Amino acid sequence: MLIVMRDGCSPQDVDRVIDRLRQMSADGQVAELSGRTVIGVDPPGAIAGPDALDGLAGVERVVVLADPHPLARREGREGRTVVVVGDVRVGGGRPVLIAGPCAVEGEQALCSLARTLKAAGADLLRGGALKPRSSPYSFQGIGLDGYRMLGRAREVSGLPVVSEVLDEASLEAAREHVDVLQVGARNMHNYALLKKVARAGRPVLLKRGMTATLHEWMLAAEYVLEAGNPAVILCERGIRTFSGHSRFTLDLSVVPAIREASHLPVIVDPSHATGFRSRVPAMARAALASGADGIMLEVHADPRQALSDGRQALLPEQFAALAAELRALSAALDSARETVP
Amino acid sequence: MLIVMRDGCSPQDVDRVIDRLRQMSADGQVAELSGRTVIGVDPPGAIAGPDALDGLAGVERVVVLADPHPLARREGREGRTVVVVGDVRVGGGRPVLIAGPCAVEGEQALCSLARTLKAAGADLLRGGALKPRSSPYSFQGIGLDGYRMLGRAREVSGLPVVSEVLDEASLEAAREHVDVLQVGARNMHNYALLKKVARAGRPVLLKRGMTATLHEWMLAAEYVLEAGNPAVILCERGIRTFSGHSRFTLDLSVVPAIREASHLPVIVDPSHATGFRSRVPAMARAALASGADGIMLEVHADPRQALSDGRQALLPEQFAALAAELRALSAALDSARETVP
Amino acid sequence: MLIVMRDGCSPQDVDRVIDRLRQMSADGQVAELSGRTVIGVDPPGAIAGPDALDGLAGVERVVVLADPHPLARREGREGRTVVVVGDVRVGGGRPVLIAGPCAVEGEQALCSLARTLKAAGADLLRGGALKPRSSPYSFQGIGLDGYRMLGRAREVSGLPVVSEVLDEASLEAAREHVDVLQVGARNMHNYALLKKVARAGRPVLLKRGMTATLHEWMLAAEYVLEAGNPAVILCERGIRTFSGHSRFTLDLSVVPAIREASHLPVIVDPSHATGFRSRVPAMARAALASGADGIMLEVHADPRQALSDGRQALLPEQFAALAAELRALSAALDSARETVP
Amino acid sequence: MLIVMRDGCSPQDVDRVIDRLRQMSADGQVAELSGRTVIGVDPPGAIAGPDALDGLAGVERVVVLADPHPLARREGREGRTVVVVGDVRVGGGRPVLIAGPCAVEGEQALCSLARTLKAAGADLLRGGALKPRSSPYSFQGIGLDGYRMLGRAREVSGLPVVSEVLDEASLEAAREHVDVLQVGARNMHNYALLKKVARAGRPVLLKRGMTATLHEWMLAAEYVLEAGNPAVILCERGIRTFSGHSRFTLDLSVVPAIREASHLPVIVDPSHATGFRSRVPAMARAALASGADGIMLEVHADPRQALSDGRQALLPEQFAALAAELRALSAALDSARETVP
Repeated sequence: MLIVMRDGCSPQDVDRVIDRLRQMSADGQVAELSGRTVIGVDPPGAIAGPDALDGLAGVERVVVLADPHPLARREGREGRTVVVVGDVRVGGGRPVLIAGPCAVEGEQALCSLARTLKAAGADLLRGGALKPRSSPYSFQGIGLDGYRMLGRAREVSGLPVVSEVLDEASLEAAREHVDVLQVGARNMHNYALLKKVARAGRPVLLKRGMTATLHEWMLAAEYVLEAGNPAVILCERGIRTFSGHSRFTLDLSVVPAIREASHLPVIVDPSHATGFRSRVPAMARAALASGADGIMLEVHADPRQALSDGRQALLPEQFAALAAELRALSAALDSARETVP
Repeated sequence: MLIVMRDGCSPQDVDRVIDRLRQMSADGQVAELSGRTVIGVDPPGAIAGPDALDGLAGVERVVVLADPHPLARREGREGRTVVVVGDVRVGGGRPVLIAGPCAVEGEQALCSLARTLKAAGADLLRGGALKPRSSPYSFQGIGLDGYRMLGRAREVSGLPVVSEVLDEASLEAAREHVDVLQVGARNMHNYALLKKVARAGRPVLLKRGMTATLHEWMLAAEYVLEAGNPAVILCERGIRTFSGHSRFTLDLSVVPAIREASHLPVIVDPSHATGFRSRVPAMARAALASGADGIMLEVHADPRQALSDGRQALLPEQFAALAAELRALSAALDSARETVP
Repeated sequence: MLIVMRDGCSPQDVDRVIDRLRQMSADGQVAELSGRTVIGVDPPGAIAGPDALDGLAGVERVVVLADPHPLARREGREGRTVVVVGDVRVGGGRPVLIAGPCAVEGEQALCSLARTLKAAGADLLRGGALKPRSSPYSFQGIGLDGYRMLGRAREVSGLPVVSEVLDEASLEAAREHVDVLQVGARNMHNYALLKKVARAGRPVLLKRGMTATLHEWMLAAEYVLEAGNPAVILCERGIRTFSGHSRFTLDLSVVPAIREASHLPVIVDPSHATGFRSRVPAMARAALASGADGIMLEVHADPRQALSDGRQALLPEQFAALAAELRALSAALDSARETVP
Repeated sequence: MLIVMRDGCSPQDVDRVIDRLRQMSADGQVAELSGRTVIGVDPPGAIAGPDALDGLAGVERVVVLADPHPLARREGREGRTVVVVGDVRVGGGRPVLIAGPCAVEGEQALCSLARTLKAAGADLLRGGALKPRSSPYSFQGIGLDGYRMLGRAREVSGLPVVSEVLDEASLEAAREHVDVLQVGARNMHNYALLKKVARAGRPVLLKRGMTATLHEWMLAAEYVLEAGNPAVILCERGIRTFSGHSRFTLDLSVVPAIREASHLPVIVDPSHATGFRSRVPAMARAALASGADGIMLEVHADPRQALSDGRQALLPEQFAALAAELRALSAALDSARETVP
């Protein structure tokens, strides 16, 4: 930690800072740099935050040097993390396509759709057994039995399964049938849940909170990593802004930003962000072009009858066409990326 | 639900809408109003959302008429709700003052502070046993034993106690010692938790999520009300915006807005929103002037040594002075409110 | 305009609405639809806004039906607008590449860069003579002579020129030398300027304000269109949000949204939005993939010496590589778009 | 400027930074502080921004020390600025009440309202001759003759007049009749206008842009101050956020924040922010309680007939009651502020 003193501070101001540091079993190294007195805290990690210097006259700024996310950051690591789910490698170069209904609505429909999606090129199946809904009067999901149905759909289609968990009961039920445990945007700040999910021995798909900064998102990942689970997939799904033309504002520029900051793979969910089926293909293409390691798409055999979020779901044939297109685009981008760094 | 057709739609467009409604066991009443064809869905609640009309040519707009929060809304009710906690009435006209440390740090310090706060005019004691922190490396709270300490502080001070719960285990531990169960801003969208807290037989203090609209906040309250718990206290604590001069942007205009929309009492937490001790008194005054039913303030006997959020905590003597001032201000506002509606 | 009455309103409430309408030389048509009384205002455009009904008991909602942007909207038009600038067609299918320095810094450097950009595949040259800077102490641009330098660079390179104007004096100076007049994000709401620029007889590049909704952006375009100038190019350049990892949040999902809503061509400026050179290529690719009609990029021969925004400028060789890549990507997207609607 | 090197950087990294500084006619002072190599730039102001160090290996962070708003900042000044307008002192302790219609609609109505407002306790009259409206089809103001009408209303009422200017023509017309020149929120970033207004020899009321940070707002004030005009009144009028219950989110916590940062007086406009008459009194009270030096209110004799923003205008009798109340509240706050710092 560095303490930059104001222009024109008094020697007494400097002494009082040193005294405060000594009260906290630290010491201060003083240097004159760029016309200012700068005090370095020694040893470096002795003081946790800038609050410790509160109220001291003459202090202009406190510069914290410690890295807040030592496990999620890219710096100091060789290469990026690949999360392996069955035969699927998330972050391994080839973008993964995750597809399925917003909510599981029944075993037969789910199994049938899963087979269709597999044939159309999906790598993973998504589907919610429990749905966190803004209103208590909205459909809350089919319940814990939905996880079993997802397990059945995995059997018949061969697709590994991603599904959201909300609490201990759902985590318990999901563990048996689900390959990747999803923590939804509304629970990204639910640290009690993050700690429990981390210990479940499954890869975790961590959606960005609708109001989370990149830094907070990495810290949420840090909760999982710190608990000993290295298999974290980040997922951008739109942030909340004033801009009302879409449900959320898909922040695609976070993709290159987080690829610089973290070694973890990052995928994008354009369905929830746009909220309109007609705009999903454009944003899926854009997500891939921004460097995402995968795309997560809602697909429903009959969106008009969907129990939740039907308006944003693609039809199976639309997914098949988009999947083919995204594969072609990915190849085009690969050759492009070889040209420009 | 009303379906407004585009200017110049064809009779076939109207027929297709009616057909769609009939597929859903509803019917459509057609009227020509203001140069447009308007279709009323009959019976009124037959169709859940606008998605059901997706993809139909000629539809310009769907107007949903159902009230999304029948239990939280003010309309149709006599008077506003008063939440009773021991001798304290939240929403009963006299503003309540809730004060205490961000985190419980030890039994003795807490009991001593509680007595001081009681003497200074506090109505309720606040304190966190578990702290949801952005970083896994920050102090996470003293643990479940903190609830017992709060119970002890209640005994010695006579102040009823408010404390946050995070999951089933903390809810279980808190029930015995805590008078008001707090759901924090980061958990406002954690509907699994809301349902469990609602059934614990205690008043609930529901903080507004940092990204929640007024509508979503009322829906979160609706989860508690719908589960049979009528004792909900709303708490504004700042929303996330681009404006970086404070930790969050305290949205005081939500106070008159929610007083129009809901019968539930609403309090304000200026400590978390501003993040700086020096600005807390101004915003506490402003919150009271905006019509809040209470103010929640962080107080710490030695903020520089606080294990979390010390920078925003008032000193006990600052609290005492502010409490006296707020009482005087409240009296001035009462006479003022009699003059202007 | 439709007036939806509350459930349970009285006949007197309805009568008072009709009376109010009659005071304003309009009338009301009453229908019972979906369990509510709905009143249509006749003639349709008689009442400008919902304010006219303020304070009337029993009114639940006022639905305004008039289209707010009759000239910018897509509905009712055949095809999309192509803005022709010399040999360049913006919105004509082939994406345009606009490149150049943030600020004009001197004639020779500009002419040399323009020739390099032309050779590398740029379609238009950009450069600011006057720079609206947040601080009065920052470089404010080379001044009105910069427009002449741009004209000279046009001559030597053959590239048409885009440059921002700020007021009458700069508009006067720019008209002689500049092909496309840019209204910057900070002036999108400067309607006095929009009206003057509209009448200058040049295509207008209208940047989205950093806080503008899609609707407000279209209304700003409407100012230009309504003044008789049909040649408007929209430009997304990032909006202001809480998300601090980039200077602004590039709202790429506005591209498909505005292509649905408006017939005007839309381009994207990823340089200002991201603020970091390293992330510009990813966002340029994503912008193209989202459906943009063009990309606007900052390029500087020596970004470290740039007088403004050097940190986000590409080097000429980076631009050349990116331009080649974007051309290849565009071809890949074209074949893709033929497959998926 | 300080350059903090990464943990583990090489001596060559340090040398390259020093070389870069020397290329820019500066030098570097090296110190080891808190486990890091820190380089101070000498002389202090030699390098304008962090961009100059871009691309250098081993640089972790650049800390800019120069104060960006030397004229607007509070530090180093005795007391706060009082802006004198006739007999009225803005920032002089007694809060000023500014009232009037959104738009000037005619001479007689304006003069009559001005007399009423004067009698009710207003200190200044506000009214727009030209209205910057989002839509070209909305009422754009009565035109330049409106300034003359305001001058006439000043004569008959004795109230000094505040009115917005949009460009050179309106500035010219306003100078003769208007006491305080207002720069509206949409023009806060219009630096060309700020420079012209600054030189008009009148106090300037500078509204905060709806997307402006505190820092940018102070920089806009710095444009006026730097041009030699010390009489700047800041005005908070709401920022744009996701929170849709009000037109804008009134950021009252900016009042204590800017009082700490700047010596300029600050007032609040609750009418534009809330957008609803019923919530204006609560927010006017709150604004006063937050420490504002004045309140700006829209008043209209017949809001339902108002040509713009009638929905948020108070009736004259509502203003009279609110003015009396705010005076009483101000007295209560004065005694309160003496108690608590």
